[in-house]
Amino acid sequence: MLAFQKAAAPAGAQTLAQSFYTCAKVFAREAEQIFYQQWLCVGRSEQIPQGGDYLLAQVLAESILLVRDKSGRARAFFNLCRHRGTRLCTEVQGHFPQAIACPYHAWSYGLDGSLLAARHMREVEGFDVADYPLHACALVEWEGFLWVNLAGDPQPFAAAFAPLLERFTPWKMTDLRLGHRIDYDVRANWKLLFQNYAECYHCSLIHPQLVKHSPDQSGCNDLWEGPFLGGYMDINPGGSLTVTGQTTRSALPGVQGENRERVYYYSLFPNVLLSLHPDYVMVHQLWPEAVDRTRVVCSWFFDPMAMAKPDFDPLDAVEFWDLTNRQDWHVCELTQQGVSSRAYTPGPYAHQEGLLAAFDREYLRMLGL
Amino acid sequence: MLAFQKAAAPAGAQTLAQSFYTCAKVFAREAEQIFYQQWLCVGRSEQIPQGGDYLLAQVLAESILLVRDKSGRARAFFNLCRHRGTRLCTEVQGHFPQAIACPYHAWSYGLDGSLLAARHMREVEGFDVADYPLHACALVEWEGFLWVNLAGDPQPFAAAFAPLLERFTPWKMTDLRLGHRIDYDVRANWKLLFQNYAECYHCSLIHPQLVKHSPDQSGCNDLWEGPFLGGYMDINPGGSLTVTGQTTRSALPGVQGENRERVYYYSLFPNVLLSLHPDYVMVHQLWPEAVDRTRVVCSWFFDPMAMAKPDFDPLDAVEFWDLTNRQDWHVCELTQQGVSSRAYTPGPYAHQEGLLAAFDREYLRMLGL
Amino acid sequence: MLAFQKAAAPAGAQTLAQSFYTCAKVFAREAEQIFYQQWLCVGRSEQIPQGGDYLLAQVLAESILLVRDKSGRARAFFNLCRHRGTRLCTEVQGHFPQAIACPYHAWSYGLDGSLLAARHMREVEGFDVADYPLHACALVEWEGFLWVNLAGDPQPFAAAFAPLLERFTPWKMTDLRLGHRIDYDVRANWKLLFQNYAECYHCSLIHPQLVKHSPDQSGCNDLWEGPFLGGYMDINPGGSLTVTGQTTRSALPGVQGENRERVYYYSLFPNVLLSLHPDYVMVHQLWPEAVDRTRVVCSWFFDPMAMAKPDFDPLDAVEFWDLTNRQDWHVCELTQQGVSSRAYTPGPYAHQEGLLAAFDREYLRMLGL
Repeated sequence: MLAFQKAAAPAGAQTLAQSFYTCAKVFAREAEQIFYQQWLCVGRSEQIPQGGDYLLAQVLAESILLVRDKSGRARAFFNLCRHRGTRLCTEVQGHFPQAIACPYHAWSYGLDGSLLAARHMREVEGFDVADYPLHACALVEWEGFLWVNLAGDPQPFAAAFAPLLERFTPWKMTDLRLGHRIDYDVRANWKLLFQNYAECYHCSLIHPQLVKHSPDQSGCNDLWEGPFLGGYMDINPGGSLTVTGQTTRSALPGVQGENRERVYYYSLFPNVLLSLHPDYVMVHQLWPEAVDRTRVVCSWFFDPMAMAKPDFDPLDAVEFWDLTNRQDWHVCELTQQGVSSRAYTPGPYAHQEGLLAAFDREYLRMLGL
Repeated sequence: MLAFQKAAAPAGAQTLAQSFYTCAKVFAREAEQIFYQQWLCVGRSEQIPQGGDYLLAQVLAESILLVRDKSGRARAFFNLCRHRGTRLCTEVQGHFPQAIACPYHAWSYGLDGSLLAARHMREVEGFDVADYPLHACALVEWEGFLWVNLAGDPQPFAAAFAPLLERFTPWKMTDLRLGHRIDYDVRANWKLLFQNYAECYHCSLIHPQLVKHSPDQSGCNDLWEGPFLGGYMDINPGGSLTVTGQTTRSALPGVQGENRERVYYYSLFPNVLLSLHPDYVMVHQLWPEAVDRTRVVCSWFFDPMAMAKPDFDPLDAVEFWDLTNRQDWHVCELTQQGVSSRAYTPGPYAHQEGLLAAFDREYLRMLGL
Repeated sequence: MLAFQKAAAPAGAQTLAQSFYTCAKVFAREAEQIFYQQWLCVGRSEQIPQGGDYLLAQVLAESILLVRDKSGRARAFFNLCRHRGTRLCTEVQGHFPQAIACPYHAWSYGLDGSLLAARHMREVEGFDVADYPLHACALVEWEGFLWVNLAGDPQPFAAAFAPLLERFTPWKMTDLRLGHRIDYDVRANWKLLFQNYAECYHCSLIHPQLVKHSPDQSGCNDLWEGPFLGGYMDINPGGSLTVTGQTTRSALPGVQGENRERVYYYSLFPNVLLSLHPDYVMVHQLWPEAVDRTRVVCSWFFDPMAMAKPDFDPLDAVEFWDLTNRQDWHVCELTQQGVSSRAYTPGPYAHQEGLLAAFDREYLRMLGL
């Protein structure tokens, strides 16, 4: 049974200090202590359905090779050879028939990362193929998504994601399929995008189309502390978050009752925004590229039964959110500009910004501050 | 009564050491100790004639909002909201009917910078609009120009500009109006542009057109120490500094006697070059963008009576100086390249380079060196 | 009498640590301790045949002016004036009729670098033209190439190049002339290019065209320790390293016997790869531009007698090596990407990579490590 509350910001809560949005050293520390330590969403299981299928994921500065082995297990490797360090693979997606061969000297690895063959290396005293498997990193499949963790000794996924593990069952996300994807290059710090997602105080001003179909004062939060934050807002009865506010799509098979008139918004620290609609699911992956720049990958997922219909068209949902996304990125970029001023001082949070204060607390905790 | 002299460089005077032209740390220190401390010319009063009119000025990394309030007083604010730090305004010039509203959550400020309204903030314990006016900075109008000072406790303008306050009265610059503007992107340190302006030792070689109309050995200085440096040079009798050396424009109303055959050149540390001609005034604003890059805004001002004539054409003056400007920027860029060499060592100043030695002394004094 | 051996890598030899390929501080140290200390090939004597002819060379951040004086001696100067530091010359190649004049104030230098005239400087107390010659650097002509050394007190060329001085006599390189030149912009550390050149372990995989005409297991090294490394490989009898494997060109006049079926490959630390073919010579100059970027100038030289023939066409050799070059740059770029990963660890060298281990040793010695 979920608890709901409005989760107001505590008295005196203020925005973060300037350096968290502008300092390259803070950004480097975030990479080390957050992005290279936490579980990150990097793609979908259905992108590598068969043994030998692979996918490249760019995780900050790292190229990660996601491969399904012959037993059906998905694995993740740092994309470089153990011999001279050469990048193994440059195609974003593809299939390895048997093995992964380095393009420089043909050292050859199995789909489980083991070194199978290294030409002429038998002559080298003390050389043993067992000492040179690909550098692996942790990978988990959950709700149809691929999650990697680049830490040397990562926290188990089940422990890290415990509050979420069964929470999204009604949407059966494993069964959904990609309907559309848009990538955005946003000139703002990644935290400003999280903060923007965590409040609807701005909605009536910035998103006139959104508030027409989903009242900006509606809803409640059911997660208001820790790495996962969010709750629901109402959708007008019988409506949908699309350009017209209507849809011909049915609700997803498992979505029943009040969930048919709600949209659930969750931020999953540090790289996912998860938006669960009655008839589709939208996911933002956030990828920091610099202290003042973030790449956003926005994907829309639908029921394959709906997608199989001849009149299926995802664009009513895509265009609605593409407009809303761009409205948000614009104010995030304006905020990046302003917080970079020597005159910037932390400002006071409104009650509606309670989740921002919670996000900031979790963020500072992750940095050990 | 002005004193005049040739102001030769002292024996042994040498160019500045390399780091002043190439080191990013020196550049950061200049920003803090010079550009964020001194009075800077950022525009003209007539750009914001009415209450509510505004103008954006870019002062190094800072966006400054220049607004005329309803009482007619011009004011300057850092361009960011006190709530989340969002940039308030992005249009370079415009009009606020009543108030300045933040585009993110609609916090609203008066033209005097006071916070008028902040939605939902009354609910927040301890919140008082009086605590959150826009961050202001000092602004003065003088000779028709807008001057800002971003320091926390700026030196009063009248004290800083005491040697100049009544000096330019004959040109009645408040009455003049903009005839033309050209922006330049120069790949050289800002000090090389000041130094270039401060001597005519290079004129016979670089500016054959200029020396035809204004003898390069003529003239004298009347300011040769401190932040303001310069003096006059002769213009050929009956002539003007134009493409043809002639003009149909009359001298400016207040310019009489010998001033009708002189051009006065003054450098106003740290961002203005002021060139007073009998029939027009030219102003260079210098904006350092990096240790090796400077944006220059060059403006030509004329008597509005002359501008009202059907045959008024500023281009004879504009094209003459545009050519001369480009000749100067080219050698400044060559000098930036050379002083960046590991082989560069300070070189000796000629007598004609006395004002450069004075500029360097003032500059080092400003840095506390 | 030369000694030959296969020069296998010692047991346990490994690739360099990551920072040598990715760290900007290491790159700055390499500039200071290697490139600004060692003899570097910057061009050909025939580019400045006559007194007064000049050529600009870009040596990392430095512009160097190479001039032949009236006595026929080639000289090298840092390309800046001793007065205000202005770049003297921007044309890549040209001729000074008498003197080198600064474009800013016309200070004028002789072809030997002495200051001949400095306008108005006689008036300056204590000024003596003898104190302000151009900053010179060491220059030597050897085998038709121009070699500069920017160190304050350079090791004599004859001592530094002792192992090579008479080694290449048969190819009479002084007599050869440029047939073609291609510049490449390679996104890889300069050492990866040296290492790539030093082994043919990759040849069968990367260069199918090359190994068809020159067996990849053939040959032996005759220099396997120190700054100069290399040896020969076989060319198929009667063949040549061209697109077709054949040529109508005769062997170079001095190339006799077994040298007519060999290609000699030498790396000359730190900026030359020298490839001596029976019928032509190919030279790569390597110019580090950043820790992960190198400019390569590849030149092909031929016998002027052959070049004078009406059917002379260098493109069979040029296109063969242009293809091979691009194959190499590609894997060097892939290796730069991989060694930049946080997962990179040094890998084991194969026996065929003995010269790489020797190169790494010499490199570390140069850095005092």
